[in-house]
Amino acid sequence: MIKEIVKNLKENPPLVHGITNYVTVNDCANILLAAGAAPIMADDSREVEEIASICNSLYINIGTLNARTIEVMILAGKTSNSKEHPVVLDPVGAGASSLRTTTTFELLDQVKFSVIRGNISEIKTVAQGQGTTKGVDADENDAISGDNLEETIEFAKKLSEKTDAIIGITGAIDIVADHKKAYIIRNGHPLMSKITGTGCMLTALIAAYCGSNVRHTLDATATAICAMGVCGERAYEKLLKNNGGTSSYRMYIIDEMSQLTAERLESGAKIEIR
Amino acid sequence: MIKEIVKNLKENPPLVHGITNYVTVNDCANILLAAGAAPIMADDSREVEEIASICNSLYINIGTLNARTIEVMILAGKTSNSKEHPVVLDPVGAGASSLRTTTTFELLDQVKFSVIRGNISEIKTVAQGQGTTKGVDADENDAISGDNLEETIEFAKKLSEKTDAIIGITGAIDIVADHKKAYIIRNGHPLMSKITGTGCMLTALIAAYCGSNVRHTLDATATAICAMGVCGERAYEKLLKNNGGTSSYRMYIIDEMSQLTAERLESGAKIEIR
Amino acid sequence: MIKEIVKNLKENPPLVHGITNYVTVNDCANILLAAGAAPIMADDSREVEEIASICNSLYINIGTLNARTIEVMILAGKTSNSKEHPVVLDPVGAGASSLRTTTTFELLDQVKFSVIRGNISEIKTVAQGQGTTKGVDADENDAISGDNLEETIEFAKKLSEKTDAIIGITGAIDIVADHKKAYIIRNGHPLMSKITGTGCMLTALIAAYCGSNVRHTLDATATAICAMGVCGERAYEKLLKNNGGTSSYRMYIIDEMSQLTAERLESGAKIEIR
Repeated sequence: MIKEIVKNLKENPPLVHGITNYVTVNDCANILLAAGAAPIMADDSREVEEIASICNSLYINIGTLNARTIEVMILAGKTSNSKEHPVVLDPVGAGASSLRTTTTFELLDQVKFSVIRGNISEIKTVAQGQGTTKGVDADENDAISGDNLEETIEFAKKLSEKTDAIIGITGAIDIVADHKKAYIIRNGHPLMSKITGTGCMLTALIAAYCGSNVRHTLDATATAICAMGVCGERAYEKLLKNNGGTSSYRMYIIDEMSQLTAERLESGAKIEIR
Repeated sequence: MIKEIVKNLKENPPLVHGITNYVTVNDCANILLAAGAAPIMADDSREVEEIASICNSLYINIGTLNARTIEVMILAGKTSNSKEHPVVLDPVGAGASSLRTTTTFELLDQVKFSVIRGNISEIKTVAQGQGTTKGVDADENDAISGDNLEETIEFAKKLSEKTDAIIGITGAIDIVADHKKAYIIRNGHPLMSKITGTGCMLTALIAAYCGSNVRHTLDATATAICAMGVCGERAYEKLLKNNGGTSSYRMYIIDEMSQLTAERLESGAKIEIR
Repeated sequence: MIKEIVKNLKENPPLVHGITNYVTVNDCANILLAAGAAPIMADDSREVEEIASICNSLYINIGTLNARTIEVMILAGKTSNSKEHPVVLDPVGAGASSLRTTTTFELLDQVKFSVIRGNISEIKTVAQGQGTTKGVDADENDAISGDNLEETIEFAKKLSEKTDAIIGITGAIDIVADHKKAYIIRNGHPLMSKITGTGCMLTALIAAYCGSNVRHTLDATATAICAMGVCGERAYEKLLKNNGGTSSYRMYIIDEMSQLTAERLESGAKIEIR
């Protein structure tokens, strides 16, 4: 499955529309280019419908929300829906403020998402309408472990049924589920949480893989998560060799993405079906 | 000519005002510092006239346009015009949305630009009032090659006459022209298109070189384009040696700019006059 | 003192709210993560009070001001004040435009700051209501040297008394003072001025150290300034070894921050009390 998904992206590189936060927007653009996709950022109400139309997919990241951008997210989302383009939601910090939580629900109400990806606290907020998100990181009490894995898989499947979106919960262990099937992914490295933007980059990458695999968005999402994780692992090896710090690590992750082959990804992926 | 242009920048480092997109703004600031210039970003209507006044040049990049910034671009442009400071336009994505195309024309109508730099699709949009720009990249059908080089040079010269601005068309081959004279530049590396911001950085750099060479803006623009290209080539050599990816490449380009001497630039420049 | 300050940050990592410019916001987030703190950026009026409440400290950087963000800075500042969280001001470019100068005074009027950090021209503007700031860099005529050091220390102490804030003046020599006591710090490297964001990152770092040391904000501020300077020195050594340029230097600084131990910081700090 991985090879097919990657092949589709390489052969039909998607143009990906991003409406995202200004903290990590440059990283999102660079990871998309590294993966072989083309990024475009546009967030004025007078152009998002046109831009969304010419793109293959859209991701919406609520990291630095403001009144102007919320309206625009909905406009772009509706256009992408009408074109049947995949739309990915990253509810950054949902649960940390009422604005983020209510905006998440407004977006879910107005736009049909193909994929919703967040940490466990954010996804719990999506499910419950409330959360204990600590800033933009997951609450430790929520962390996925061997103990609550089965339970969390069930939770993801049910939420997928409720939202009609693929649910991606990322952390030490990642879960990607639709209402029937779940992938468990054990790639990545804890140091990835020590640089800003790994989550945002992953969301952008999911939009890219889905944009070239519109009929296989579950597999595309799982492949994107594996890709990010494998790059994180390989970058960590390079880091150890060079005795680098977190900024080198950020660079190595994007470097690895630009050098990732389908073969390397498939052999590195630690993925199982549940 | 190159040595003189670089000497003027080193001896009178310009303060460069940027109104640019939020995707690559950090790279623009860093390339300016690397080249020996000083950047300042300001985009509130209540301060742009003052900031434009104390600067030596201005660049306007329409990459992430919104209603607030369009008005500000015009204000800053008019101030710079009144002070006879060089003003550079980067019509990012002109042709990809009506907003970008009409804003480009509004800017051209209200502000006198010293230089307009873009890829061939964007510049064709400037010339024709319509374009086939695919997102923010040039349309492949538009690419400059040996076959259409003479024709494109003529096109650039005529557009320069029409707009009274120096026209910079960048791609695999770069053309810089006023209404009488054109430079053809063959520096750079294709991998530069795999990182975001090389075009934006180049525009900022043109503003810097022009800011210190106000009476020689054609030569200053050509020198900036050569400088970016030579850094791209040298960075690529370093990349090969270190087996790095695209994020390393971005870093090496800015590194090379901070280490570029007039001698190295002159000996590396692949430039001819037509 | 340094070890105790660092220990408090490591044991109680702060969540730090930033309202900062879009040029260097990514660097601010990454330096906070590298230091062991957690960043959150939020600048919509409907959420800043909630976000400020859940954080441990706040920094306000006026680098790319606009009408929308000024109001938000005041809201967030007042909330942090009511919670007795440290609030740090970085008056970027105060003196370079009336908007920046008047906004600085409006902020000082409406918000109680724990620390004000800037270059000497910006801090003189804070003191006098006018300045000769050249863009966002200090005016050369203002530079702190052996000749005017005593005088500048007195100036800082008096301004601290007037504003009831710790005053941090950074440059070749750094001064940190409250109304009675001053630290003189001689860490850092001149090349730090050739990358954008070293000042902004330092301000974010001060907010982090103060957030975990609310009763020792003078010592926390001095420790943060030493930390940034020591990282700048160590990064410069690495740069020489690898023959890198300014973009490598930026990476090495953040790398060093992520690898900095209390011991390394204490042994590297060049700090004296006046």
